[in-house]
Amino acid sequence: MYDLIIIGGGPAGTAAGIYAARQKINTLLITKAFGGQMARIAVKIENYPGFEKISGLELIKKFEKHLRKQKIKIEIDEVRKIKKINEKFIVITKSKNTFESKAVIIASGGDPRPLEVKGEKEFIGRGVSYCCLCDGPMFSGKEVAVIGGGNAGFEAAIFLTNYAKKIYILETNPRVKAFAENQEKAEKTGKIKVITDIVLKEIKGKKFVESIIYQDKKRGEDVILPIGGVFVEIGSQPATSFVKDLVDFNERDEIKVDFETFKTKTPGLFAAGDVNLGKYKQIVTACGEGVKAALAAYDYLKKIS
Amino acid sequence: MYDLIIIGGGPAGTAAGIYAARQKINTLLITKAFGGQMARIAVKIENYPGFEKISGLELIKKFEKHLRKQKIKIEIDEVRKIKKINEKFIVITKSKNTFESKAVIIASGGDPRPLEVKGEKEFIGRGVSYCCLCDGPMFSGKEVAVIGGGNAGFEAAIFLTNYAKKIYILETNPRVKAFAENQEKAEKTGKIKVITDIVLKEIKGKKFVESIIYQDKKRGEDVILPIGGVFVEIGSQPATSFVKDLVDFNERDEIKVDFETFKTKTPGLFAAGDVNLGKYKQIVTACGEGVKAALAAYDYLKKIS
Repeated sequence: MYDLIIIGGGPAGTAAGIYAARQKINTLLITKAFGGQMARIAVKIENYPGFEKISGLELIKKFEKHLRKQKIKIEIDEVRKIKKINEKFIVITKSKNTFESKAVIIASGGDPRPLEVKGEKEFIGRGVSYCCLCDGPMFSGKEVAVIGGGNAGFEAAIFLTNYAKKIYILETNPRVKAFAENQEKAEKTGKIKVITDIVLKEIKGKKFVESIIYQDKKRGEDVILPIGGVFVEIGSQPATSFVKDLVDFNERDEIKVDFETFKTKTPGLFAAGDVNLGKYKQIVTACGEGVKAALAAYDYLKKIS
Repeated sequence: MYDLIIIGGGPAGTAAGIYAARQKINTLLITKAFGGQMARIAVKIENYPGFEKISGLELIKKFEKHLRKQKIKIEIDEVRKIKKINEKFIVITKSKNTFESKAVIIASGGDPRPLEVKGEKEFIGRGVSYCCLCDGPMFSGKEVAVIGGGNAGFEAAIFLTNYAKKIYILETNPRVKAFAENQEKAEKTGKIKVITDIVLKEIKGKKFVESIIYQDKKRGEDVILPIGGVFVEIGSQPATSFVKDLVDFNERDEIKVDFETFKTKTPGLFAAGDVNLGKYKQIVTACGEGVKAALAAYDYLKKIS
């Protein structure tokens, strides 16, 4: 029986773990892997205060090392279900392990959101990718499309200039949402073209992706764009399938929380980082939320003891 | 005319500045000095994710260097007044400079809270100190008292074991509030004695502090404790004297904010870090709040432009 179980090893979970352990809370952290979505950041991180420029993987290593220096139990596993029976949380994992605790912090982040467009599933691994870091090098000399004009889309496109000949960024809205710094960097590469106000209709090819079809919303016309790869960067969907009953969700399936303590509607259950409905999702904001959740869990544990 | 003025150079202000500048917001940051209350932390910082152990001063240098790498204007000065006239903020400093902006983030942190006890003012600089880092070495071989059983009090006491022979921590409440890790560390030194449930009544001496008088609440008796120094660590009071009319305060003079965006009741005016009513005040939570305020200011500036 643990006092606290933390689910997730990204910035929110790791920061929560560092604080919980240092508060002498008997804590278990369960994660598939360390880093969460930081592991998918394609460019150097320049906005985590204290590090002027660091790769996602380097920062993950520092976070993991910092966490492992504390007195905390770590399980590399995936949570499948959380139940609350009487005052006790029961956490069941993919490897069929069952753990119990008095409090839980969900910091499970998100998984890449799929396009749900014709051809997408068919061409996964054959031109459709959700990870430019992993798959970028396979697209040397090709023209590729990045779907999504947010920060992740721009960062993916900038990274892909290392390999691809030309990169199209396709965005549904009339204007892209990426930070100004990312838009400026993309322009400087001379290799990135942004196409806005479209609806993606289909991914086509034979053995491998050969083109996409999108509708130009202003003209009302369908356009065929010949490309050799599609990188999907339309954000993440919260990883919350294991917790349906104990929390409320907003329309994007993000967990509703109180923004001061990150508590959910179930006493003793907290949600920090990308998994909650917070508007601003950055590495350092996730860390801050993880820490607040850990301190709120500490207060909760003292109260019930 | 700036888009944004950030007041304060502690973790919240610095993090806000890094993000604002990277968002290409035309930003001015005004601060007395960098670091804020981090400069007063007496022990090594071990809970800012990414750095296993770092002194406050080292971390401040990293933050300042990170900020100065961005395109941002910095003024070393102290804000005396903020006014809002029509849609414009007017910020007036101690050096009688006047700056204008469309939005303001208050991240001015706090100043040490005084005891307001007989003898305190009289002995400032003659045994009464608000900064153990600055004054600690002057108390070699002496017995001293630290007033306040929170984290700052325990950290001050632990630091003072490098100099003082014995340290008493005095706490008004029946139980101290310091983190468990700090309580454990203090105990290990063998030099720190914690006295709880007291009311401090007077600081006495001739040229220099010689004793304190406190009431033992349980016994109802006054106790004279002979000591050679008093370190005041009863928290901070928000540095908000310059902003009386534009915001609402709670009973501790902390600025009321919305915890998702850190906006105050005045449109375009935000408050991040120790200056607001947030319950959990840590370096990384202040950074997270600064970043959220900067991104909310960015959204606000886009909306009004």
